[in-house]
Amino acid sequence: MRIDTLAIVGVGLIGGSLALALKQQHAVGRVLGVGRSQANLDEALRLGLIDEAVSLEAAARADVVFVATPVAQMPAVFTSLVPHLGPSTLVTDGGSTKQDVIAAARSVFGGRFNQFVAAHPIAGTEKTGAGAAFATLYRDRKVVICADADTPPTAVDRVAAMWQATGALIHRMPAAEHDDVFAAVSHLPHLLAFALVDLLAASARADQYFNYAASGFRDFTRIAAGSPEMWRDISIANRDALRQQLAVYRARLDDFDRWLTTAAGPDVAAIERSYTRASTARRAWQRHIEHGEPMPRLANGGQVE
Amino acid sequence: MRIDTLAIVGVGLIGGSLALALKQQHAVGRVLGVGRSQANLDEALRLGLIDEAVSLEAAARADVVFVATPVAQMPAVFTSLVPHLGPSTLVTDGGSTKQDVIAAARSVFGGRFNQFVAAHPIAGTEKTGAGAAFATLYRDRKVVICADADTPPTAVDRVAAMWQATGALIHRMPAAEHDDVFAAVSHLPHLLAFALVDLLAASARADQYFNYAASGFRDFTRIAAGSPEMWRDISIANRDALRQQLAVYRARLDDFDRWLTTAAGPDVAAIERSYTRASTARRAWQRHIEHGEPMPRLANGGQVE
Repeated sequence: MRIDTLAIVGVGLIGGSLALALKQQHAVGRVLGVGRSQANLDEALRLGLIDEAVSLEAAARADVVFVATPVAQMPAVFTSLVPHLGPSTLVTDGGSTKQDVIAAARSVFGGRFNQFVAAHPIAGTEKTGAGAAFATLYRDRKVVICADADTPPTAVDRVAAMWQATGALIHRMPAAEHDDVFAAVSHLPHLLAFALVDLLAASARADQYFNYAASGFRDFTRIAAGSPEMWRDISIANRDALRQQLAVYRARLDDFDRWLTTAAGPDVAAIERSYTRASTARRAWQRHIEHGEPMPRLANGGQVE
Repeated sequence: MRIDTLAIVGVGLIGGSLALALKQQHAVGRVLGVGRSQANLDEALRLGLIDEAVSLEAAARADVVFVATPVAQMPAVFTSLVPHLGPSTLVTDGGSTKQDVIAAARSVFGGRFNQFVAAHPIAGTEKTGAGAAFATLYRDRKVVICADADTPPTAVDRVAAMWQATGALIHRMPAAEHDDVFAAVSHLPHLLAFALVDLLAASARADQYFNYAASGFRDFTRIAAGSPEMWRDISIANRDALRQQLAVYRARLDDFDRWLTTAAGPDVAAIERSYTRASTARRAWQRHIEHGEPMPRLANGGQVE
C-alpha cells in the first residue's frame, strides 16, 4: 500500500495524525495540506505533517483526499472539490456521523459518487490543531467504513489499506447502524452531560453545586468540557438517530419518576432491577476493556422492561 | 478533643476510616464495633480498627455512637439504640441523605433528639468493608453538618471537633439544602448513568453498543458500576429532592428534542448556547479543582433559558 500524493483537508489532530502515521510507515509520498488558518498550516509544515500547503482546487487532483473538517463543513468542501476532481482521485472522510456525509457526497458528487468512501476513525483526544497530531493515534483503534451499494469494493479496499497502515482495525457497518450506535454510546452521553452542567451552572445555587461536586460528578461530566461547536454540529448532523435514542432515554426517566413515587410508595424493586442490570453490565464492560474478557450475554437481551 | 469510648455501627470504609484516623491522632480511647457480619468484625479487629465487637445495646452507652450503615438501615439502628442510650451519649451519622435521617432520628429519639447530630462526610472510594478503611480518607475532605434548631450547639461542636481531628473541613448547611445539592451533583448523575447503561444493555444492539463505546462513555458511566443497593437506598431516601432535579432535567431534554427538530430546522443557536455554557462552566470547574482557581461568576446566574 502506497499513496503517491495524499491531500489532507483540515490538518488538525485527526488529519495530521493520519499524515504522520503514513509518513512513518513510508506509505505515502507527498502530503498536501488545506486549511483556513495560515498559522495552523505553518505549524503543520514546521512539524512535517504536510509537505506543502495548497488550495482545495490543487488538493482535488491528489491520489487520495482525506476530508478531516467538522462534518458541518463537508458539503461545502465536497462542492469545492468536485469540479477539479482527478479522474482516479479517491475522496474519503473522517466524520463522526455518516448518513449525512454520504447524503451530501451523493448529492454533490453525482455520477462520481463512486470516487467517495465514508469512514470514521474512532480516536481522538481533547486537544485540537496540528500541534496535537501524533503518529500512533490510530494504533489498535477502530476505523468504521460505511460503504454504499454504489461504492466500488476496490475503493473500499484502498481506504481500508490506508487505515491499516496506521495500525488501525477495520470495521464495516451500514451507515444507519453506525449513526445509531454512535448516537447511543457517544452523542447522547455528550448531550446528557452538557445538559446537566448547563442546568447547574444556570441555577441560583450554582456556587453551592460546584463547591460540593466530587469525583463522580467529575467523571460523569468530563465530556461536557468538549468543543461546543463540534458537538453542536454532530448533534445536528445525527439528529434523527440522536432523537430516537433520546426518546427511549426520556421514556426511561419518566419510568424513574414514576418508580420513585407510586401511590403505594416507591417501586423499590424496579429501581433496584435497573441499577443492578446497569452495574452488572458496566462492570463486565470494564473487565472487557481492561482485561479482554468477553462480554457476557446480557440478561433481558432486547427486552426493555 | 478526645472521645473516651467511640462506637462504630457499620465498620466499613466510612466507619472504619473514622476509627483509624481518630486512633492515629490519639483522639479516641476505646473503639467498639457493631455489625451484622462476624467476618467483617473479625477483620476490623485484626486490622485494629476496633478494640471490641459489641451489641447495639452495649454501643448505646459509648460517649459517641457513629452510625455508618446504609441510610435505609438507620431507622432500625436508631430504634435499637434508643432504649439503652447513655444519658450523655451523642449519636451522629454518616449518611448521604439528611432530611430522611433527621426525620427518623426525631421520630425515634423523641425527647432525646438533642443527643443526635446529622452529618455527611463527602468521601469514599469504590471499595467497601473493613479492609477498605484507611486513616487519611477524610483529610482535606468536606464534612457537612446539618443541625436543626433543636440541636444543641455544644453537640454540633463536639461532632465538628471529632471530624476536624481526622483532617476534614467542616461545612454547615440546612438539611433541605444539603439534599438538594447532593441530588443535583451526585444522586441525579448516578441515576442518569445507571439509566443509560441499563437501556443499552437491554437493547437488541447491546453487543454493538458495548463494542464501540470508547473513553467518553467510560468516564460518563463509571458511576454506573456503583453498588445498586446503596444507590437504590439513596435514590429512595432522597426521592423528593431527586424528583425535583429530575423534573428540571427532563424539561431540558424536552427542550433539546424540540431544538433538534423545529419546523424551521434545528435551533442551532439554542443548542450551541447550552453546550457553550456547559463547556465554559465545566472547564472553569476543572481549573478550580486542579489549580484552586476561583469559579467565575457564571453567566445567566439563576436564569434557565
